[in-house]
Amino acid sequence: MTRIALAVEYDGSRFHGWQTQEDGVRTVQWHLEQALSRVADHPVTLICAGRTDTGVHATGQVCHFDSNANRDMKAWVMGGNRFLPDDVAVRWAVPVSDDFHARFSAFRRCYRYVIYNAGAPPALFRRQVTWNHRPLDVQRMADAARALVGTHDFTSYRCVHCQAKSPVKTLHRLDIQQRGRMIILEVEANAFLMHMVRNIAGVLMAIGAGHQPVEWAAEVLAARDRREGGVTAPPYGLYLVDIGYPDQFELPREPLGPLWLE
Amino acid sequence: MTRIALAVEYDGSRFHGWQTQEDGVRTVQWHLEQALSRVADHPVTLICAGRTDTGVHATGQVCHFDSNANRDMKAWVMGGNRFLPDDVAVRWAVPVSDDFHARFSAFRRCYRYVIYNAGAPPALFRRQVTWNHRPLDVQRMADAARALVGTHDFTSYRCVHCQAKSPVKTLHRLDIQQRGRMIILEVEANAFLMHMVRNIAGVLMAIGAGHQPVEWAAEVLAARDRREGGVTAPPYGLYLVDIGYPDQFELPREPLGPLWLE
Repeated sequence: MTRIALAVEYDGSRFHGWQTQEDGVRTVQWHLEQALSRVADHPVTLICAGRTDTGVHATGQVCHFDSNANRDMKAWVMGGNRFLPDDVAVRWAVPVSDDFHARFSAFRRCYRYVIYNAGAPPALFRRQVTWNHRPLDVQRMADAARALVGTHDFTSYRCVHCQAKSPVKTLHRLDIQQRGRMIILEVEANAFLMHMVRNIAGVLMAIGAGHQPVEWAAEVLAARDRREGGVTAPPYGLYLVDIGYPDQFELPREPLGPLWLE
Repeated sequence: MTRIALAVEYDGSRFHGWQTQEDGVRTVQWHLEQALSRVADHPVTLICAGRTDTGVHATGQVCHFDSNANRDMKAWVMGGNRFLPDDVAVRWAVPVSDDFHARFSAFRRCYRYVIYNAGAPPALFRRQVTWNHRPLDVQRMADAARALVGTHDFTSYRCVHCQAKSPVKTLHRLDIQQRGRMIILEVEANAFLMHMVRNIAGVLMAIGAGHQPVEWAAEVLAARDRREGGVTAPPYGLYLVDIGYPDQFELPREPLGPLWLE
């Protein structure tokens, strides 16, 4: 039996998220398991690093599965891609030791949230960015973001349906950069709560638009009450871009990120 | 009667090109004319700078029309966008003098061709880039491209169905840059022949992949025979990004280009 780790890219706009649901619901996990089972010639069950929601994209999702099929790594990539629909692709496959676990071995996750800030709607990439037509002040957003970095109780920024045991997470980094009409939030944490990035994006956009003061991000955090937070920003601008694992597992490190942000 | 110039962005992947065809064929022109006619409350006929083919995108298409409706420019943009499908958008509208003509006043066109160069297919942006899985040598492509810059007879690089009177065009610039997994050709000319950018991209990719020598781009040019050229590269990587007009028309100059190349 060999344990194999895979990196997967997908356009989430036509998927009902990662996780397999009842029959007929289009999910990333279902399609990947079908494709890899055909390559393996036995049923494959996948565990992923981060279960993304409906509409959320990934350039660097990582998952693992076990197989006793004797295949070289190229077969998992090319064979898998042959049986996958065109909005999901396997990027690499490597054998890993038995103690590797895509979810529990991960000690760091990185997401990007891409805002398209222009008066007219984006005709290109309309399900790959979040459109905000109000001029956003990036400096105000960056000032507000500083209050969120560190170890905090993020109850106000998590979905009421979130089932994580603890609301305390460590946000290592929340960088904001502007590139032309795009504003890109890059967020790195040990782990994230349900809707956490989208709720942070919602608060920062309200501050950037001048609807709320810069201090509001910290006030929402301190309230530890989801009702004090802002609206959950749409999923279309969100990308799971990178997962951090201990060096001992020797996973490939390659440039990830939404393609056009390389 | 006022003449109005518009800038238009569209995702060409679900359109059968710019130009209106028989009933029921989905084109950019048809949708724009319908939307603007509803804003104008009279039939609107559009003239564009460059009629793009099926699958080709635009971030900076420019067109004009005449109207006696008394509307401010914001109404053409916002009203137009309200009646348009989500894969086409009006970016700006300005009144222009009667001697402005979107096609004949244009003295420069700029296209970008975006190649995604990676082993695994692009799950994100699969109809917004051209995938080439063979490693491409960008230096070889840039060396080959130099032979095409200048005023030449581009017969070998035009589609046999091209109806332009003269095959002689002046290519001002053909820059090639690599950004992560993307290779971007930026081509500027006084005007282009049918399929010219895609035929140039096809030749440069064959050279980059090592299937042809660097000199081949010049040899194809010298042959003045389409049969000597390479395959026409797919439309999905192609973007009409900018149109140059004389300063006297005072059109807005704003950063264009595929969003993610800003």
